[in-house]
Amino acid sequence: MEEWTVEVEHCKSPKEKPKTEELEFGRIFTDHMLVIDYTEPVGWHDARIIPYQPLTIDPSAMVFHYGQSVFEGLKAYYTPDGDIQLFRPEKNLERMNRSNDRLCIPQIDESHVLKAIKQLVHMEKDWVPTAEGTSLYIRPFIISTEPFIGVAPAHHYKLIVILSPVGAYYKEGINPVKIAVENTFVRAVKGGTGEAKTGGNYASSLKAQELCAKQGFTQVLWLDGVEKKYIEEVGSMNVFFKIDGEIVTPSLNGSILEGVTRNSVIQLLKHWQLPVTEKRISMEELYQAHMDGTLEEAFGTGTAAVISPIGQLSWEGKDLHINNGKTGKVAKALYETLTGIQYGKEKDPFNWIEKVTETETIPVK
Amino acid sequence: MEEWTVEVEHCKSPKEKPKTEELEFGRIFTDHMLVIDYTEPVGWHDARIIPYQPLTIDPSAMVFHYGQSVFEGLKAYYTPDGDIQLFRPEKNLERMNRSNDRLCIPQIDESHVLKAIKQLVHMEKDWVPTAEGTSLYIRPFIISTEPFIGVAPAHHYKLIVILSPVGAYYKEGINPVKIAVENTFVRAVKGGTGEAKTGGNYASSLKAQELCAKQGFTQVLWLDGVEKKYIEEVGSMNVFFKIDGEIVTPSLNGSILEGVTRNSVIQLLKHWQLPVTEKRISMEELYQAHMDGTLEEAFGTGTAAVISPIGQLSWEGKDLHINNGKTGKVAKALYETLTGIQYGKEKDPFNWIEKVTETETIPVK
Ligand SMILES: Cc1ncc(COP(=O)(O)O)c(C=O)c1O
Ligand SMILES: Cc1ncc(COP(=O)(O)O)c(C=O)c1O
Repeated sequence: MEEWTVEVEHCKSPKEKPKTEELEFGRIFTDHMLVIDYTEPVGWHDARIIPYQPLTIDPSAMVFHYGQSVFEGLKAYYTPDGDIQLFRPEKNLERMNRSNDRLCIPQIDESHVLKAIKQLVHMEKDWVPTAEGTSLYIRPFIISTEPFIGVAPAHHYKLIVILSPVGAYYKEGINPVKIAVENTFVRAVKGGTGEAKTGGNYASSLKAQELCAKQGFTQVLWLDGVEKKYIEEVGSMNVFFKIDGEIVTPSLNGSILEGVTRNSVIQLLKHWQLPVTEKRISMEELYQAHMDGTLEEAFGTGTAAVISPIGQLSWEGKDLHINNGKTGKVAKALYETLTGIQYGKEKDPFNWIEKVTETETIPVK
Repeated sequence: MEEWTVEVEHCKSPKEKPKTEELEFGRIFTDHMLVIDYTEPVGWHDARIIPYQPLTIDPSAMVFHYGQSVFEGLKAYYTPDGDIQLFRPEKNLERMNRSNDRLCIPQIDESHVLKAIKQLVHMEKDWVPTAEGTSLYIRPFIISTEPFIGVAPAHHYKLIVILSPVGAYYKEGINPVKIAVENTFVRAVKGGTGEAKTGGNYASSLKAQELCAKQGFTQVLWLDGVEKKYIEEVGSMNVFFKIDGEIVTPSLNGSILEGVTRNSVIQLLKHWQLPVTEKRISMEELYQAHMDGTLEEAFGTGTAAVISPIGQLSWEGKDLHINNGKTGKVAKALYETLTGIQYGKEKDPFNWIEKVTETETIPVK
């Protein structure tokens, strides 16, 4: 990947862009996609932006059998000035490489891939929706494509980036959600793949998610896989609590995904000089705080929903109603500041924003 | 799936069949494959045998992102009479449905799918290799194909069956292998997906496998994910030990895959009136038995390798040399009887064998 250029093949018949009301999460994709191949001994090569199209993959490709894959999720935002910008994209590419390491997938050149992603987003700039709360979701993912039925790291991969204009992730928006504490199923355990963003973690979560949805919950809260006592995270969000004035979140213990939003929330809270602690939190302790009246707020954090207040937590037949089912002050402030920065409506004191601008000219097919 | 027919489209240019010496595991595939679609509300439909070909799948297909997939592995054997036969195939389809349940994939009609698999194998009968120890590996798998970026069970799937003529799985053959007991990484934990045959379990095993291979081991022996004390299974095999005359294997505890070979071995041992027990076995206990001189044999069991004697087990810097690195009597007897039955050279007192015969005429495109 020394000489880094991205070949571009323009699509011949652009699709119609969805109306704001039609925006759902992850159902509509833009006109182009980025593809980069990996083969041995060449390494990553042949970066190209091509019309969005089906992949042609051998049925024996390892990803179908042994799940060797990783993915990321970030967003491009439209600002009042008409700019398009990304939020801490380098964090996602760093995490992708950590996931790659865990899954025995070769490392990517983070800055090269980021450049190619920006180029793709720039080409698709008219796809970035402009209405409040909407954005262009960016999904980079890597799959093992070697045609081989055997449990071993593959020798061929594809890195693909697809884009989807999205509305709000939860239909509840910033309104509080109902979460069930999961006591039977386990998402991840230390020594497993919980820290990595890989398909298997999500596949294993489907069953618990399906059962809790039937009972009217939005997502499950996962407990640790060893003792089923300690709080880990929510479906696709990290989780924070405000207890007696202190804001706490489970520490990174090897089975929790390190969220970019989590990291940003911690920085923001420190910046505001609010007390924030990463520590092991048991469900028992949380329940006690609730009974004592000191559980003041609970909320999830993630790229898709940004901040998602938790209005109710159900655990072993007990319902913890938090802050009268209303969005708490800290959650609200975080939501407003984070989205403010993301959408370019507030100052960015942390240098979190990267503008997507015209890049150098690149070969066009 | 009421009217069950399989449409057949014959391939125009059959490939050349590999020579016996060229047979590796899982690199060569036959001329045809079976495909069955699932869509809602129709259910499983459109079973067809078509030329082996790449799949055309949207890059947003859920399998690439959230790993919703299951698979199976069984073999077709060539007998001295020129017959082709399967070994307990209904067990694999039962297990596929258990895996489906865990992964929120719709149930398949086991007997219909088995019939279609037999039809495929019959069509490809000239691909079943005839040399000693070779067979035709059958790989049924299901992938979620719905084009949707969101963590939820899919509404579209494909069940695909591909076939690969194979030689021995381990280059060591029935010779003893060196296994490392894994102390850092964890394959599965109760409440996770360990019982299911799904990609994520194998993806998560790659790293440990890669590290142990660098140190000259064939596979790792997994310990339980909670206490890292109790023996679970080997890479892609269940595991048995003979201690002081008794044969023991870890009981099915929710995180171990229930092997068809494991089940057959237990039945065979009982039939031979040898003492066999399923129970929780700690590594400490095994080490003690080794020190006392009562650890007589250790072997793995699985479709790919049938019986794989373990000659050396390394645990926390200690090397347990088992049976002087030689194949034990029980392992040898099991190997010979199982392969004898599978290849039609021995009587089949358990009704384990299903012949693959000409099936009723089916529509041909
Ligand atoms: C399991 C899990 N935890 C946490 C998060 C939040 O991470 P981030 O803030 O980077 O979106 C996500 C979503 O990406 C996730 O899938
Ligand atoms: C994890 C694991 N355990 C055990 C086995 C053995 O199962 P079986 O005897 O059905 O091949 C396999 C192989 O299928 C496996 O992948």
